[in-house]
Amino acid sequence: MSFAHSPVASFDASERFVSHEASALAPVAAVERLSARGAATRGEIAIELDLRHAGRRRVLLRYETQGEAGLPVLFVAGGISAHRHLAPSREFAEAGWWHSQVGAGRALDPQRFHLVSFDWIGADGELDAPLDPADQADAIAALLDALRIPRLQAFIGYSYGAMVGLQFASRHPARLGELISISGTHRAHPYAAAWRALQRRAVALGALQCDESQGLALARELAVLSYRTPEEFAERFGPAQVRDGRVRVAAEDYLDHCGHKYVARTSTTAFLRLSESIDLQQVDPSTIRLPVTVVAVGEDRLIPLSESYDLIERLRGETRLRVLRSIYGHDACLKEETDIDTILREALADCSQVAA
Amino acid sequence: MSFAHSPVASFDASERFVSHEASALAPVAAVERLSARGAATRGEIAIELDLRHAGRRRVLLRYETQGEAGLPVLFVAGGISAHRHLAPSREFAEAGWWHSQVGAGRALDPQRFHLVSFDWIGADGELDAPLDPADQADAIAALLDALRIPRLQAFIGYSYGAMVGLQFASRHPARLGELISISGTHRAHPYAAAWRALQRRAVALGALQCDESQGLALARELAVLSYRTPEEFAERFGPAQVRDGRVRVAAEDYLDHCGHKYVARTSTTAFLRLSESIDLQQVDPSTIRLPVTVVAVGEDRLIPLSESYDLIERLRGETRLRVLRSIYGHDACLKEETDIDTILREALADCSQVAA
Repeated sequence: MSFAHSPVASFDASERFVSHEASALAPVAAVERLSARGAATRGEIAIELDLRHAGRRRVLLRYETQGEAGLPVLFVAGGISAHRHLAPSREFAEAGWWHSQVGAGRALDPQRFHLVSFDWIGADGELDAPLDPADQADAIAALLDALRIPRLQAFIGYSYGAMVGLQFASRHPARLGELISISGTHRAHPYAAAWRALQRRAVALGALQCDESQGLALARELAVLSYRTPEEFAERFGPAQVRDGRVRVAAEDYLDHCGHKYVARTSTTAFLRLSESIDLQQVDPSTIRLPVTVVAVGEDRLIPLSESYDLIERLRGETRLRVLRSIYGHDACLKEETDIDTILREALADCSQVAA
Repeated sequence: MSFAHSPVASFDASERFVSHEASALAPVAAVERLSARGAATRGEIAIELDLRHAGRRRVLLRYETQGEAGLPVLFVAGGISAHRHLAPSREFAEAGWWHSQVGAGRALDPQRFHLVSFDWIGADGELDAPLDPADQADAIAALLDALRIPRLQAFIGYSYGAMVGLQFASRHPARLGELISISGTHRAHPYAAAWRALQRRAVALGALQCDESQGLALARELAVLSYRTPEEFAERFGPAQVRDGRVRVAAEDYLDHCGHKYVARTSTTAFLRLSESIDLQQVDPSTIRLPVTVVAVGEDRLIPLSESYDLIERLRGETRLRVLRSIYGHDACLKEETDIDTILREALADCSQVAA
């Protein structure tokens, strides 16, 4: 972290230090002027959208922007649990899902870029229908129309967001300069799909017992296992213990925590439909002719490296492959801050040169 | 530990051969005559056993033998779902769990070896208590006492059986010539343990409204995923489809089949207690000073290769490492018939030379 330009109501002690540093590095007046110019905004736009598997439906586009409207535009999208709020701003001070990369001085700096993001359609749990990643790409195109943004300098997608990014690049190429696709591919891997199907069965089993929250918690715990790696667990957790006549393994407290936290903020319908959506991913990479940076992680339990190689080989535009090694597996994008920062800066710098 | 040969009341027709041996006071001559023909025998022996986490309990040792009693003795043990019946014999013609390696002309040939196997204690679902793999090793020692077998030429263990084999080698070294440990290690890996803990949670979720079978089926489906690999699924299964407004992934029919089959033959208590037992595995390899062949599989999702390297490095006797590559992962032992055959023959040939 270098500096932040927002007053911090809800930060913890370690982050208060940062705001202090921010004051030291940048005059308060300047910070406020920048903030005023690049005010974060939020909105909701209702549209009718033709869904690939469910016909025409009314959907809500709940978006957020950061940074001045005149700057080059980046669309940023994360996993199925991510949302429109990337990082704290003066207007929306709560923690975001990608604070490590979004903010003043970071790779995705609202002083350099106009950042656009949205809540996945289906994330509110109101749309109980199969959702194709292509539907999300079309929803984003509709959102850009509504915001009068003709073209994105780059689409930066992680996990499900990378899948949607590939769809966007394939379906709306005239609106995109470059794609940065992190830990996502052109097709759902059959093994990862099976893993997700069993998560959805856990939800169904919970619903059968009239206990949706326990089913959803178990689904999340299973998902967390798929996001992380044996390497991390070996470092973090010790042997199992017998407690009250039952065996409790060392990771169970952590998994409990993950499950409870998720249940508190997630609609079951949203989880089911977005989880399904990942499994519907199908893009022919040869339909993509614009520059793509593919970021893969060697330890990713959901996306074998071979899938990323296959993607790279079949793309038709300029491509760049970055392979990280990380004990965080599929979650590396959220944990390997320095590596991801380097990759984003490199890709965006090249992109700016091409644009200039 | 103590044991008593108890007359067994509950034999079915196919088990009539055993009653001689099982009621320990049967004339030795009768047993010898049966053995001389290489007949397969079965029996049940009730003993009192001191369980590490649950005190003294009555347990049933349900064993099977194949091959003449005078031949070198091999103890053969598989995963938690395996049992005493390795392969068809004249007496017990039904399919066994390891028919690929056990039988006339195969690596584990009843014409060359006296094969002994048993049902894991806890497998009948009667023992609802934490079971340590060390308890299983002690139960096997008690079984050998009862069968008047002072020493095994080799213990051949796969998966949980390999874990128990390591316990046996550590706790009863005077009774063992050599250990062949396939896809099992000295400690439960914390990631694999977490995976199993979530399977047990699926059972608990099912039990909430007395629908144990659905919970157990889901647990099994999750286990199957851990036994197999993305490489196999990529070869076997295609893309997901939308059916009746729901997404169904290609592996679901297969997983359904695995779940149903398992529920039909498995006690929920047995599954829970044996699954827990894997997570209690802790052996200090430096306590093992006899020859060990460690067979590891590069693609095993439950046992990273690094665990097998660690085991090999810490064993104190003669060691041999065999690393297979297999798309069947943890299940390779049951699927890679030729490789396993070669490894078994090699290890047993060396063992015979040492013995001679």
